[in-house]
Amino acid sequence: RPPAESVSVNDPYGSEPARNPVLIPSSKKPFNAEPPALLLVDSFLTPNELFYVRNHLPVPQVNLKTYTLDVEGPKKVLKFTYDDLIKLPKKSVAAVVQCAGNRRSDMVDIKPVKGLNWGAAAIGNAEWSGVRLSDLLKQCGVNLDTTTKKHLVFEGMDKGPEGSVYGASIPIELAKSLKDEIILAYEMNGKQIPRDHGYPVRVIIPGVVGARQVKWLNKIYLSDEESECHWQRRDYKGFNSSIDWHNVDFDSSVAIMQLPVVSAICDPPAGTELEEGSEDVTVRGYAWSGGGRGIIRVDVSADGGKTWHTAELQPNGQTPYRAWAWTLWEATVPLPEGHVGPVELVCKAVDVSYNVQPDGVEGVWNLRGVLNNAWHRVTVTVPPPS
Amino acid sequence: RPPAESVSVNDPYGSEPARNPVLIPSSKKPFNAEPPALLLVDSFLTPNELFYVRNHLPVPQVNLKTYTLDVEGPKKVLKFTYDDLIKLPKKSVAAVVQCAGNRRSDMVDIKPVKGLNWGAAAIGNAEWSGVRLSDLLKQCGVNLDTTTKKHLVFEGMDKGPEGSVYGASIPIELAKSLKDEIILAYEMNGKQIPRDHGYPVRVIIPGVVGARQVKWLNKIYLSDEESECHWQRRDYKGFNSSIDWHNVDFDSSVAIMQLPVVSAICDPPAGTELEEGSEDVTVRGYAWSGGGRGIIRVDVSADGGKTWHTAELQPNGQTPYRAWAWTLWEATVPLPEGHVGPVELVCKAVDVSYNVQPDGVEGVWNLRGVLNNAWHRVTVTVPPPS
Ligand SMILES: [Mo]
Ligand SMILES: [Mo]
Repeated sequence: RPPAESVSVNDPYGSEPARNPVLIPSSKKPFNAEPPALLLVDSFLTPNELFYVRNHLPVPQVNLKTYTLDVEGPKKVLKFTYDDLIKLPKKSVAAVVQCAGNRRSDMVDIKPVKGLNWGAAAIGNAEWSGVRLSDLLKQCGVNLDTTTKKHLVFEGMDKGPEGSVYGASIPIELAKSLKDEIILAYEMNGKQIPRDHGYPVRVIIPGVVGARQVKWLNKIYLSDEESECHWQRRDYKGFNSSIDWHNVDFDSSVAIMQLPVVSAICDPPAGTELEEGSEDVTVRGYAWSGGGRGIIRVDVSADGGKTWHTAELQPNGQTPYRAWAWTLWEATVPLPEGHVGPVELVCKAVDVSYNVQPDGVEGVWNLRGVLNNAWHRVTVTVPPPS
Repeated sequence: RPPAESVSVNDPYGSEPARNPVLIPSSKKPFNAEPPALLLVDSFLTPNELFYVRNHLPVPQVNLKTYTLDVEGPKKVLKFTYDDLIKLPKKSVAAVVQCAGNRRSDMVDIKPVKGLNWGAAAIGNAEWSGVRLSDLLKQCGVNLDTTTKKHLVFEGMDKGPEGSVYGASIPIELAKSLKDEIILAYEMNGKQIPRDHGYPVRVIIPGVVGARQVKWLNKIYLSDEESECHWQRRDYKGFNSSIDWHNVDFDSSVAIMQLPVVSAICDPPAGTELEEGSEDVTVRGYAWSGGGRGIIRVDVSADGGKTWHTAELQPNGQTPYRAWAWTLWEATVPLPEGHVGPVELVCKAVDVSYNVQPDGVEGVWNLRGVLNNAWHRVTVTVPPPS
């Protein structure tokens, strides 16, 4: 491992956790990194130490003995200790967490955007275990079905330079539709949640963008207003490609919640030299859609999108209307006889609502480089006979 | 009105209802027709006589006095008369019904497809009133939440030449998620449902393709098997553009249920000659997404998709996660100074899950010409100064 960088005692980033050196950082302070995409297709559940890290602020140091999760009901405010939480009924769900900026780097090629330069691996699929949000709310006298409040708000323990904490909210209608699926997770793939992923507790809101699944969770309450956090109101929103920093109005757009259908080729990586005389190429990747919409088809092309082959989907054990986990897929696509030179691989997925990915990045380009779910293109090559 | 065509007594199409002559037929027997798209944007609720008609078989003649809706529970089979139904609690919902083949005509331009040549008006939005399915199921001892059956099956009274009836089914997981939203409708926009739209009762399954919203509804039951109807198993499924009739395997695809995000320009109609010296063009249309996903943005271009303007959305009074109705929109888009000649108008919509429409028809082309939700393009023209 590389030697730790020397840091001053006053550096807010002075107590960051150790990280797997295989992670490729897009920013060091705050730490943001993704694994090589190739590793994602090795396992249905992404190992904790390979899971992309998306931190907006320094990782807080949390003392398990003094930690509490505050849940504010209209009349009752309860403080749950870690011990309180682990004694409650435990629920597990395999669910994707994806950064809104996943695949941003393909947008940069069109026109510059503001944001971390993510490749296609700012996404992972883990089994999250913890307590049902509905169980905690019940104890505080909140009934999600009947509340007239408009937003469910989450606050983390990660602080900005001026002391304000990271936070997010989801519309109450979304919370109602997910009800028993939202969990306060203290385990990730059967182990205590790592510091980079929210130790000791993060909220898992399946089918929703990572930015709302607040880590180092400290407080939950209902409100008539959206979270006032910068990342809720002034970021993580979509715009059309004619909106840029001179004419953007963040109030005019809707905060990203459930994500659209996406897929990516993880294997072979771009630039791979295939075997001499290859007659076909085996392509592997992931596909996923927000809102629990299962993946029903992935199409793969080895000629830039002229002809398509239907990939084999690996079952994920979930129903197509509550599919929170991703679908890994594989296709072996023939190459033209004697083909030598570049091969443009393309993939695109279809979800159970028959939503499809858009053809080009141009059409979904936006100033923040979020929500790139265009067909994913990777060029590899067949070398000439030696 | 044109004189009725003379028909033989044995013609199964001998007792069809009268239709508004403004409807443009794509087939006469069975009758299939859509209104001029321009009329769709005149009102949030599509008038009954302008609502597109999609019949697979002759319109049955139903006697209200002998009509029954049979609901089969595991132990109890109940026959509801029309009088029984109208005495039960009444629920209304404004919801779109769209044909899977809406906008098929744009696919035909790429490569021939099998299907009726629909324009962009095989869609309508009506207020449907009737009885909650869950109320009827309860009476028959069926609890949707706990049933282990896999499909909810509907049968109509419209019969094919060999006596088999039209039918459809939806997966039980979908039925569970919609539960109280599925209604057995006997009214359309406050009037008795017209014969062409299912008199006396049709099932309304909001957010789902028209083909499953069985008209002239006769029977409802639970099953471990999908409906065996031709239109469930051998039609209304999606495939990639490299699948054609020589290599199609209908069993390999999933029956269309909830539909993807779509939009279309209704005004001005294609070929419109704008006013001489026009400095801008006002564009109007509809946008909608299946699964109750509300529309959060519509982008409109007057230069073929190079620059985009955000349209004004007409509120539809529904929440973004239970948005069954469509969103009508309008945008006034400037034209280049002194522009003369063709203007390529384009629209594309975004739903609350940030699903977008695909750029091109090529990418979603399929042998049945269903599910065309590509950006909608309409060319109009500015005449030269006279
Ligand atoms: Mo993110
Ligand atoms: Mo249809």
